[in-house]
Amino acid sequence: MTLLSALAGDAEIEALLSDAAQLDAMLAFERALAEASAEAGWIADDAAAAINKAIDSYSPDWSGLEAGMAQDGVVVPALVKQLKAKVADPHGAALHRGATSQDVIDTALMLQLAKVFDVYEARLSGLLEKLDALAVAHGAKPLMAHTRMQVALPTTWRAKLGSWSEPLKRQLRALVAMRRSLLVIQLGGPVGDRGSFETHGDAIAAGMARRLDLGLATPWQATRDPIAALGGLLAQISGSLGKLGMDVTLLAQNEVAAITLAGGGGSSAMAHKSNPVNAEVLVALARHNAGLSGTLNQALVHENERSGAAWTLEWLTLPSMLVSTGASLRLAQKLVDQIRIG
Amino acid sequence: MTLLSALAGDAEIEALLSDAAQLDAMLAFERALAEASAEAGWIADDAAAAINKAIDSYSPDWSGLEAGMAQDGVVVPALVKQLKAKVADPHGAALHRGATSQDVIDTALMLQLAKVFDVYEARLSGLLEKLDALAVAHGAKPLMAHTRMQVALPTTWRAKLGSWSEPLKRQLRALVAMRRSLLVIQLGGPVGDRGSFETHGDAIAAGMARRLDLGLATPWQATRDPIAALGGLLAQISGSLGKLGMDVTLLAQNEVAAITLAGGGGSSAMAHKSNPVNAEVLVALARHNAGLSGTLNQALVHENERSGAAWTLEWLTLPSMLVSTGASLRLAQKLVDQIRIG
Amino acid sequence: MTLLSALAGDAEIEALLSDAAQLDAMLAFERALAEASAEAGWIADDAAAAINKAIDSYSPDWSGLEAGMAQDGVVVPALVKQLKAKVADPHGAALHRGATSQDVIDTALMLQLAKVFDVYEARLSGLLEKLDALAVAHGAKPLMAHTRMQVALPTTWRAKLGSWSEPLKRQLRALVAMRRSLLVIQLGGPVGDRGSFETHGDAIAAGMARRLDLGLATPWQATRDPIAALGGLLAQISGSLGKLGMDVTLLAQNEVAAITLAGGGGSSAMAHKSNPVNAEVLVALARHNAGLSGTLNQALVHENERSGAAWTLEWLTLPSMLVSTGASLRLAQKLVDQIRIG
Amino acid sequence: MTLLSALAGDAEIEALLSDAAQLDAMLAFERALAEASAEAGWIADDAAAAINKAIDSYSPDWSGLEAGMAQDGVVVPALVKQLKAKVADPHGAALHRGATSQDVIDTALMLQLAKVFDVYEARLSGLLEKLDALAVAHGAKPLMAHTRMQVALPTTWRAKLGSWSEPLKRQLRALVAMRRSLLVIQLGGPVGDRGSFETHGDAIAAGMARRLDLGLATPWQATRDPIAALGGLLAQISGSLGKLGMDVTLLAQNEVAAITLAGGGGSSAMAHKSNPVNAEVLVALARHNAGLSGTLNQALVHENERSGAAWTLEWLTLPSMLVSTGASLRLAQKLVDQIRIG
Repeated sequence: MTLLSALAGDAEIEALLSDAAQLDAMLAFERALAEASAEAGWIADDAAAAINKAIDSYSPDWSGLEAGMAQDGVVVPALVKQLKAKVADPHGAALHRGATSQDVIDTALMLQLAKVFDVYEARLSGLLEKLDALAVAHGAKPLMAHTRMQVALPTTWRAKLGSWSEPLKRQLRALVAMRRSLLVIQLGGPVGDRGSFETHGDAIAAGMARRLDLGLATPWQATRDPIAALGGLLAQISGSLGKLGMDVTLLAQNEVAAITLAGGGGSSAMAHKSNPVNAEVLVALARHNAGLSGTLNQALVHENERSGAAWTLEWLTLPSMLVSTGASLRLAQKLVDQIRIG
Repeated sequence: MTLLSALAGDAEIEALLSDAAQLDAMLAFERALAEASAEAGWIADDAAAAINKAIDSYSPDWSGLEAGMAQDGVVVPALVKQLKAKVADPHGAALHRGATSQDVIDTALMLQLAKVFDVYEARLSGLLEKLDALAVAHGAKPLMAHTRMQVALPTTWRAKLGSWSEPLKRQLRALVAMRRSLLVIQLGGPVGDRGSFETHGDAIAAGMARRLDLGLATPWQATRDPIAALGGLLAQISGSLGKLGMDVTLLAQNEVAAITLAGGGGSSAMAHKSNPVNAEVLVALARHNAGLSGTLNQALVHENERSGAAWTLEWLTLPSMLVSTGASLRLAQKLVDQIRIG
Repeated sequence: MTLLSALAGDAEIEALLSDAAQLDAMLAFERALAEASAEAGWIADDAAAAINKAIDSYSPDWSGLEAGMAQDGVVVPALVKQLKAKVADPHGAALHRGATSQDVIDTALMLQLAKVFDVYEARLSGLLEKLDALAVAHGAKPLMAHTRMQVALPTTWRAKLGSWSEPLKRQLRALVAMRRSLLVIQLGGPVGDRGSFETHGDAIAAGMARRLDLGLATPWQATRDPIAALGGLLAQISGSLGKLGMDVTLLAQNEVAAITLAGGGGSSAMAHKSNPVNAEVLVALARHNAGLSGTLNQALVHENERSGAAWTLEWLTLPSMLVSTGASLRLAQKLVDQIRIG
Repeated sequence: MTLLSALAGDAEIEALLSDAAQLDAMLAFERALAEASAEAGWIADDAAAAINKAIDSYSPDWSGLEAGMAQDGVVVPALVKQLKAKVADPHGAALHRGATSQDVIDTALMLQLAKVFDVYEARLSGLLEKLDALAVAHGAKPLMAHTRMQVALPTTWRAKLGSWSEPLKRQLRALVAMRRSLLVIQLGGPVGDRGSFETHGDAIAAGMARRLDLGLATPWQATRDPIAALGGLLAQISGSLGKLGMDVTLLAQNEVAAITLAGGGGSSAMAHKSNPVNAEVLVALARHNAGLSGTLNQALVHENERSGAAWTLEWLTLPSMLVSTGASLRLAQKLVDQIRIG
């Protein structure tokens, strides 16, 4: 849906969540697993070398991966099969040894999220700079406050701009903190207790985390509250930007005219219109993400050692939230640039 | 996101909601508007002919449409501009005359939905036939009922199959009824009262409805409860299929073994596994659609004569619901085919 | 929470959903069951008379009912035990014979809903009369239309009032239609197939439906899409009223002043404020109900022949929605009375 | 709704959120405001003494408060009026001086939340102790793992119990951290910039925070992401307990019988049933809270300096979430006590 994406999507975040990006991350997982397994004595050094070589030369058969996804509910069995065919004998059995699909998918997600966080942090910082610049230029100017949709008493632009930037500062700090609490390795094996690695599981996990620049954690495949916490933070970011957008639509009303917007949207029927498009989309994205955050929290009810239903529900919601949050940050920057204060 | 779509999406519905399909529907709108306007004496016959000719030869500049979408929050201004450049002088002003962006988008949606409904109705009927066939073959067989997740008393497969098919029968009827209540023309002009068509509005609307095979309705651009009702029905369909999926996962547990599933999903770590993938995805889609139905209902709070925020929120939710509902119906058919009863 | 209820609740609807009202409805169920069972020859006439007499003289031990609710997850076992102690020997076994808790609770809900619908229909009609009166008095007056939060072009008050009343007319019709599709008897017995009534189930159900003025239906204890459809309609009603409320807050802004509101809310700090309290609460109720409608749809994933989890989820959401919808209708009437048009 | 509360409510939390408890907290606010204002030289010492005396002797006129709530959309104007009538002349004007309704309500909420957090922390700790005790007694015992609703491979009870307790440990830490980030004073005055306190605002806020044992913060009346973060945490707690409940219902199935439950719920129709009532309610509460968390996030779109609609939406959702979370913790303790491991 290209057209909608041009308005309310985010090409940069979409690329980081694409099938190709996920595949790269999954290959990084298998590579790190092989290397860490060799280091720990769980597979032979030759096997690790053979696996690395296979990954180097691997070119995906996408239609096979799609068919595997539809059949198995997760792409990893098909991917491992394709990869294994590339690993020189007798090292095929060393590939993916002890691991399970969820280890691959969940760790790959963490690798993808690390890059998404880079984008978010840069955009949040850029947005805060823009808001600070507005405060320097206009902070002392008076602004009529509105409470409960009625004129209240005069305040200043400094207060208004502070109400936009303070949540974003909190959220930037929360995002940075989440790198430690969320971006960790998942390695559990089939039932999530690392038993499939015999005595080597913890060492392999540590070696992988070091190689992948992720935090260390006990297996968390069925306890996904950190994912839910991420969803909450995403909803807070887009929600705070939705407040900014709503304020802008109210302040830019023709009758209020506390601000004007440079380069508003045009109408097919009314040439005089200058619509606050970016502001409106911020409100829409805030409400969309709010709803999805509730749905993502439904996935906390995760049956037993692995729930296919709850896991799939995450896949249906989290990527959409990540894109919408990226779009919110992208559009907020555009919108703040459009604001002209009296 | 091709891989996820292979599992939980629906290629057929996605195509009906693609940019290309929307463009076709928008062009059908402009064509019908021109013809009905000529019929009503609102534009000249020559103008209608020139517009039709322009549409025949129109080839979209997609990057221009995307840029327009991002700028205006709706693709129509850019589309009309591209089309108008193709209309022979002096007939350009007759194109889109009296109409507004929302008339185009909302009516185009109705045209797209008509085709989506065709698919849904066919799949619902097909699914009901499969369930009826199971009832004929196995209806009299005993089945242990479970209430509150505990063994209750024996019932029959007929009762179980009835609990799966009865909601679907109701929903098929509701879908058919919704063709009348929902699939109607939107023609309001800039502020939604047809005033921009002077005295010709009702006649043009009638002429368009006839040409487009849609129902007639007063303008509804800001009163979108029929869209919300559609969202509710979609959630009911996927929710009822989620119940079917949940039942299947429970009945197919190894310890219960009331059914087996042919062709279950494989695991990358446990060769003995036969996972009820389609059933799990039905549950996930049900929960996803349930959440989105709540978000779509948020869009009922539609400011004044047209809300960019509420409208965009519909775009962010409804297509996803339509695809998920289609996927639910697709997967339910696959799942029912997999069921093996004692 | 009396204070919040004074603002955003509804005493009349709350009373219809109270424990006392539910108890009355459950007793009506047991009475109708006994009478219809005697009529069908499933229990003796004397037994039915003894049961009726016991119900006549029954006075609930509420703390026992509460303890039973906490223990059994449903109040019916405790209620039946209390009632049975009142039934003269040897007729105790005839009480509740063949029925199960869910038959009682679900049918009682239908009886309560019938009364709730009475209130809704009266309020919807009253509200439509008020809007029609405004249209008669002010319909021809001009009103500046606003699209996408910007001044558009002039329209009339008739168009604005129509955008408020047309959804309500649709919803009133839908409510009336739902009396047939929703307000039906539930009688299934322990596993929901009426097998516990041997050959008498259908006759008893018919006799009960006639006595309780409910529609006839096959058992629906695990197929609750009509409940979900009710939730959708409630969200549509409160959502349409939320649109009315949002419009009022926008039109009553001091800078817009398209309307004034008589008797607005006061502030503890700003004597000049006249806050559009009823309009704001309409928006809040719309958003609350929208969210709950999504959660209610989650309950469609109803495990096997009876899901304690899904059923309890309905109890946690539907009453709140019924009260919020009642409050929306109550407040919309107040708000429309407050509107003063130029 | 006493009966439902007996099952799925929480008397202790409900009491902490009652009108009476809120009134106490609001009076504590006014008392602290008067004392801190006198200390800062904003009102006279005699005025503070007179205000304290009035509060000491104040007995609420509840029907007046209810009427004020309905009229003003917030109870504070009526409360201040009642209180002011008790303050000896000429000190009435010193009461509530510079403050606004939202300062009172939001700070009172923080005081109430501090007590709710006490209960939560105690229950979380108690629950973790119970789970630890189970691990000591049974941790080494084998348990068949289930992935994707199918038998996987053996694991241990230690792993299962860890999957239940680890999220709770994280959430207990998050709750403790939230005392600092969330439980802060709100003092902003009518438009939220403390301008109404002239130069004394910061000093008064500091004096109040010290007296009320709350953190210090700049005014946050329109930037409510910490409230949304609380909602997220509540959904995580009840969601993690919903996972525990779901696991228990699955493990306690008659066919699986990995555990039995002492004292299960009875049926009105099947004497042999022992229903996992507490486990089912945990699932229902998890889904209810998940949905409400999404709705609470909708309230982040908070118009301008104070949104009556967004604020009321918080009132409609947050108390319900607090009670449901308390109920989840209460029931989880009961449920863990019921578990009998082979």
